[in-house]
Amino acid sequence: MNLLIDIGGLTVGQAQDEHLASGVTVVVFDEPAIAGVAVLGGAPAGRDQECLLPDRTVERVDALVLSGGSSFGLDATTGVQAWLRERGRGIAVGNVRVPIVPTAILFDLVNGGDKDWGQYPPYRELGYAACQAAGTRFDLGTAGAGYGATTVDLKGGLGSASIRTTAGHTVAAVVAVNAIGSAMIGNGPHFWAAPYEIGGEFGGLGWPAQPTDVYPLAWKGQGVTATTIGIVATDAVLTKAQATRLAAVAGTGLGKALRLSHASMDGDTIFAAATGQKPLRPGLDDFIELAARASDCVARALARGVYEATALPFPGSLPSWRDRHDK
Amino acid sequence: MNLLIDIGGLTVGQAQDEHLASGVTVVVFDEPAIAGVAVLGGAPAGRDQECLLPDRTVERVDALVLSGGSSFGLDATTGVQAWLRERGRGIAVGNVRVPIVPTAILFDLVNGGDKDWGQYPPYRELGYAACQAAGTRFDLGTAGAGYGATTVDLKGGLGSASIRTTAGHTVAAVVAVNAIGSAMIGNGPHFWAAPYEIGGEFGGLGWPAQPTDVYPLAWKGQGVTATTIGIVATDAVLTKAQATRLAAVAGTGLGKALRLSHASMDGDTIFAAATGQKPLRPGLDDFIELAARASDCVARALARGVYEATALPFPGSLPSWRDRHDK
Repeated sequence: MNLLIDIGGLTVGQAQDEHLASGVTVVVFDEPAIAGVAVLGGAPAGRDQECLLPDRTVERVDALVLSGGSSFGLDATTGVQAWLRERGRGIAVGNVRVPIVPTAILFDLVNGGDKDWGQYPPYRELGYAACQAAGTRFDLGTAGAGYGATTVDLKGGLGSASIRTTAGHTVAAVVAVNAIGSAMIGNGPHFWAAPYEIGGEFGGLGWPAQPTDVYPLAWKGQGVTATTIGIVATDAVLTKAQATRLAAVAGTGLGKALRLSHASMDGDTIFAAATGQKPLRPGLDDFIELAARASDCVARALARGVYEATALPFPGSLPSWRDRHDK
Repeated sequence: MNLLIDIGGLTVGQAQDEHLASGVTVVVFDEPAIAGVAVLGGAPAGRDQECLLPDRTVERVDALVLSGGSSFGLDATTGVQAWLRERGRGIAVGNVRVPIVPTAILFDLVNGGDKDWGQYPPYRELGYAACQAAGTRFDLGTAGAGYGATTVDLKGGLGSASIRTTAGHTVAAVVAVNAIGSAMIGNGPHFWAAPYEIGGEFGGLGWPAQPTDVYPLAWKGQGVTATTIGIVATDAVLTKAQATRLAAVAGTGLGKALRLSHASMDGDTIFAAATGQKPLRPGLDDFIELAARASDCVARALARGVYEATALPFPGSLPSWRDRHDK
C-alpha cells in the first residue's frame, strides 16, 4: 500500500484538532520493537529518547510518537502511555508496567490555529485519541502530526512510503514535514525527491528540464522554528546498534528531499524501529541496502506529505501543492 | 578561485606516493581556528577528534588532516604535529607546545598500490611533506588524500569548492571522495550534485532529461570499506558549538551528492573550521545560510573530486570520469 503499515506487526493512529490546527501520529507495535534514533537538527525537543542510545539498557519500544505543539506536544506521550498501560503493555518492574514511548515534536505554534488552550495543552488527549484510532489505515497530507505543519512556501503534511529490498525485507517511513526550507525545486512543481519517486506517488512530474545555476535558498525567518520528524520501520531482525545506524542513514533522506535541513532552528529527528520478523543474511550487504532504501523512503514520504496536503483555512495560510500546481 | 584557500588565513598542502597510491591533505591555519566535527558513517576512524565536542576545553585547532591509509593513515598527524612544533605552534603547557591536529582517514588499502611498507607505515612522512608543500595552490582529482580514492564505479579524488553568502562571508569545502556508492546518476555522465553546480565546475551537464523509476543501488562489496571525508571552512566568526552545527549541516552534502552515504562500511566525517575574520550579524539567518551553502560546497567539491580525477595505473584500476564520459 506504500505506507508504513506495509511493515507487519504495527498499527498507525492519528488524531488532530482543526481549531488547534495540530495533531498527533502514533505507531503502536504489536510486540515491543527494537529502536534507535538520530537527532539531526539544531533545535530538537524529545521525550524518552535517552534510552535509545545503543549502550542504554532498554532495547525495545512499545510505541513511537510524532506530535505537533513544540515541546507542549511532548504531552502526547502521556496519552499513549495511558492507553498502553490499560492494555497491560510496557516493561514489567515489580507489579507495574512502564510503556516505552519515545516521542519527537515539530513546531506548529504560529500556523493560525488557536493555541490558547488554558492551563494545560491538549496533546495528552490527542495522544490517547490517536491510539484509539490506530489501525492499518491512516490519512496522508493534512493529518496527524502533519496537520498543522508547513514548509517555507507550501503547506506541509504527513507522508508515507515503503519498498521491498532485494533480500525480501520491507522498509517504510512516515514523515511529518514541517521544514524550515522547501521540498520544491525553485518555485516550480518539481520535488527535490523526484529521482527517488516510484509510480507517480507524488505526481510523477520528474525534474525541470535542466537545473539552473544555484537555486535560491529560502527559509522561515528566525522567529519561527520548524522541524521535520519521521519514523522508519522494517520487518528485518536488527540489533539496537543497527537500528541506530538505520536512523542515521535514513536521515540522509532529509538532505535529499529538502533545501534545507538540519538547520539551527530545525529539530529534525528520525526514529528507526525493527519488528524482527525476517533475519538479515550474514554480512553487511542486506543491511546496507535496507538503510539506503530507508533513506529513499524518507525522501519519498516527505514529498508525499507535501503533495497530499490541503491548506489550513486561516487568513494568510500557505497554499497547498495542489492549490498552486494542480489547477 | 573556487577552492578552500578562498578562505583567508589558511593554507592547503598535499603529498602523495604513486607507488603506495595514497596520500595526505592538510589544512594549516595561520592562527588557531575554532573547529567542530560531524562523524556520520558507521565505520569511522579518527585521531584527536574527541576534543572537538562542544563541551570539551580545547576550542581551536592548528591544522586539520585528511589522509588515505585507513587507520594506518592516522600517523599523518604525527608528521603535521612535528612540522607545527618546529614552528612554535600549539597550545602552550609549561614550556612545551602541543599542536592540535584532528585527523580523519579513508580506506584505500585495496586500490592496487603497494601497501607492503615494512615495519611502519609512510603516512608520518607524508604528513610532514604535505605541510612543507602548504600554500595557496593545490591540485584537484588524483591528489593528496584523494590520490588513492575510488567510488564504486569511477576513480574518486579530491575536490574543492567555495561560495560567498549574501552577508559577505565565504564558505568553502575540500572533500576526498572515496564513497561506498556512486556520485553519478545511474550509469550516465550526470552528477547527483548537478542542481548545486556553479559555472560548469564539473562539466555543466545538468540532469538526465527525466529521472527514471528508482536508480539502481550499487556499492562496494562488504569486504571493502570506503569513506568520504572533508573539511569546510569559513571566514565567519563562529563559536565552537556553531562549528559543530556547521559540520552537521555540511554533512547533508554527502546525501545530496552520493548514492549512498553514511553506510555501515563508511567512515564519513566532516570537519568545520572558522578563521573568525568577519562576525555574523545578530540573529540566526546569516548562520543558517552559511551552513546551507556549506552543504552545497560539500556536494560540489565532491563532484569536482570525481570530475577532475585520473585513473590509477594498476591492472583493474577503475576508469576516471573523463575516461568514461569525455572521450
